[in-house]
Amino acid sequence: MTDFGEDDFFVASLKGVIAKINPSARVIDITHRLPSFNIKVGSFVLVSSYKYFPSRTVFLVVVDPGVGTSRKILIAETDNYFFVAPNNGVLSLALEEEGIKQLREVSNQNYFLPELSRTFEGRDKMAPVAAWLSRGISCEEFGPEMTSYKKFTAEKPQIKRNEIIGRILYIDKFGNLITNIPEGMIELIQKKTGKKELSLTIEDKEITSFEQSYSSVKKGELLFLVGSVGLIEIAAKESSAAQKLKIKNGDKVKIIVRSQE
Amino acid sequence: MTDFGEDDFFVASLKGVIAKINPSARVIDITHRLPSFNIKVGSFVLVSSYKYFPSRTVFLVVVDPGVGTSRKILIAETDNYFFVAPNNGVLSLALEEEGIKQLREVSNQNYFLPELSRTFEGRDKMAPVAAWLSRGISCEEFGPEMTSYKKFTAEKPQIKRNEIIGRILYIDKFGNLITNIPEGMIELIQKKTGKKELSLTIEDKEITSFEQSYSSVKKGELLFLVGSVGLIEIAAKESSAAQKLKIKNGDKVKIIVRSQE
Amino acid sequence: MTDFGEDDFFVASLKGVIAKINPSARVIDITHRLPSFNIKVGSFVLVSSYKYFPSRTVFLVVVDPGVGTSRKILIAETDNYFFVAPNNGVLSLALEEEGIKQLREVSNQNYFLPELSRTFEGRDKMAPVAAWLSRGISCEEFGPEMTSYKKFTAEKPQIKRNEIIGRILYIDKFGNLITNIPEGMIELIQKKTGKKELSLTIEDKEITSFEQSYSSVKKGELLFLVGSVGLIEIAAKESSAAQKLKIKNGDKVKIIVRSQE
Repeated sequence: MTDFGEDDFFVASLKGVIAKINPSARVIDITHRLPSFNIKVGSFVLVSSYKYFPSRTVFLVVVDPGVGTSRKILIAETDNYFFVAPNNGVLSLALEEEGIKQLREVSNQNYFLPELSRTFEGRDKMAPVAAWLSRGISCEEFGPEMTSYKKFTAEKPQIKRNEIIGRILYIDKFGNLITNIPEGMIELIQKKTGKKELSLTIEDKEITSFEQSYSSVKKGELLFLVGSVGLIEIAAKESSAAQKLKIKNGDKVKIIVRSQE
Repeated sequence: MTDFGEDDFFVASLKGVIAKINPSARVIDITHRLPSFNIKVGSFVLVSSYKYFPSRTVFLVVVDPGVGTSRKILIAETDNYFFVAPNNGVLSLALEEEGIKQLREVSNQNYFLPELSRTFEGRDKMAPVAAWLSRGISCEEFGPEMTSYKKFTAEKPQIKRNEIIGRILYIDKFGNLITNIPEGMIELIQKKTGKKELSLTIEDKEITSFEQSYSSVKKGELLFLVGSVGLIEIAAKESSAAQKLKIKNGDKVKIIVRSQE
Repeated sequence: MTDFGEDDFFVASLKGVIAKINPSARVIDITHRLPSFNIKVGSFVLVSSYKYFPSRTVFLVVVDPGVGTSRKILIAETDNYFFVAPNNGVLSLALEEEGIKQLREVSNQNYFLPELSRTFEGRDKMAPVAAWLSRGISCEEFGPEMTSYKKFTAEKPQIKRNEIIGRILYIDKFGNLITNIPEGMIELIQKKTGKKELSLTIEDKEITSFEQSYSSVKKGELLFLVGSVGLIEIAAKESSAAQKLKIKNGDKVKIIVRSQE
């Protein structure tokens, strides 16, 4: 996963480097279309997909605004996976979920390309390290242990009595608005208050259709539902909720739990 | 093939699921950039490429506006291939060409992911089923036989004496306009009428250059020819016919067969 | 590498053809998003990535404005690699760097698809030839020797005393402006003149920060540095230099070497 886009020679260089070191490595693209330098979006896309991959997968994550500076390169070994990335927070959400077995600072030049640039450490350092990891070289080989890694704290929704105040976390290709409100939070309030009926408010617009699938309303109509990563999502049937509501990432959203009328 | 785009975590989730079930499966992307929910365009892109793939390929086709509803998931085994898709018509054009050996409704939960969402059956049901198929599990295992599948009927061009009235079916990346008029239909009229000369009219513009390759006219000039999938195509040398003609998908096109002057 | 884009069925057709001929071939995309028909950009993207690939890689390069004409299809075997492409100059920069062992004109129909179109020789001729090459068929098999190939001469920067006049060669996804000025040319002038201090002028804008990494200036500020392919590059920290400077491909750039003040 990178923010390199697909127009240039950047992704191909990584894959060439990997194929040279481990010809039998199977490389799967998560995405290369992350917004440039956007660590939070990268972290969200990673956490939404990594757990579907086979155990022992090596995740190479290059969103690297600090390339060429003293920011470190990190290997994280978890119960199930390996992650290689700049130590800038891009692994925050995934590592929060996974049990960390060890963290290593990548520094052993034996596993880098022989010629190093200052502007493309994804190619020169991280891709070769990921390839060597996939060949079974143990984490210890790559550099000294680290006791912590850089992380950002994801903003959690706030609960006030029967209301949840959250935010739009991610807008997908279909224009679905993924919020930071987990499904379980609604159930919790429903249990606590004994109330069942839900409505959602975003930008002065109230949506009352809380449904199980995108198709439970009329074409073009707005609804909200539990999305595929367990978060509440606002959608419009066969249409773009983002366009209809003119919403951007980070905008506020409120869910109210009421008695059934 | 999907309409998921490449920005999000959707395609990666499918590929992770497949790699987990069948680590040696080779996954090739047809495209993930279909217009959202567009079953007809999906069907055309599939029919234009599937026959170039090795025999026994499993095609996983996720264009799924009805996800989470009662629409069924279909496995079609044909003489040469397997297809897994929602039963919504997206396989229409491919199955019309292939000899169908059996149709199955996917219902056996043993081949699904253990946790099912209501909004992403591509990941939870279709990808695992495709992966199990690629491991050699037989179609019978996945669910009961179906006797028919949902299809749309492609609009055929109409012939009136020495004229063919067709439509623009697809506009490609180069701005070439692919019509629904098969090469053979022109030959048929030429034989019937004994006339040879061709001209094509679209939006009051007449094009008289019927050529063998894009390069047979001057740079920027319009021509028509037999395209790579055997359909008549309007193009402009090293330029975009779509931009020049301001044409959109579905617009009418007319070919006239005349005596040579 | 192609200019086919990723929306259509073109790339998939190539990959299907390859998988059918050599099921164990590992296919890596360089990019399919080259500007349509742009041989110079294609040549630059190829030369910037090919050397990171394993020895004996077969590069299939389809940027083919002359498809269906008498332009030939070329196989170039070099010390390390094979290249298959239309003979139109797209291999110029790569072949300039590599030692050529032999050039062949592809003409042996035994290695083509049985049915040939006039508009898609990438699928019908070049992809199958690349696949057969990857299976170890020797170059001699595909057609007669050629003694030369079509090439364009890349415009070299000009040196006037302590000044280098170059051009913008490529603009990447981040908006970094890659010039045609190689790192070594600056060192050469520095040595000759005994002067060290550098400044760069583009469109009346002078940039004086010559740095080692993108992050050596304040966010949004312009700098220039040695990019990842050894060429001088203009960038803006975590921002797009292209947008800031409203520069396009081909625009002039001047570097002046001065005494330190």
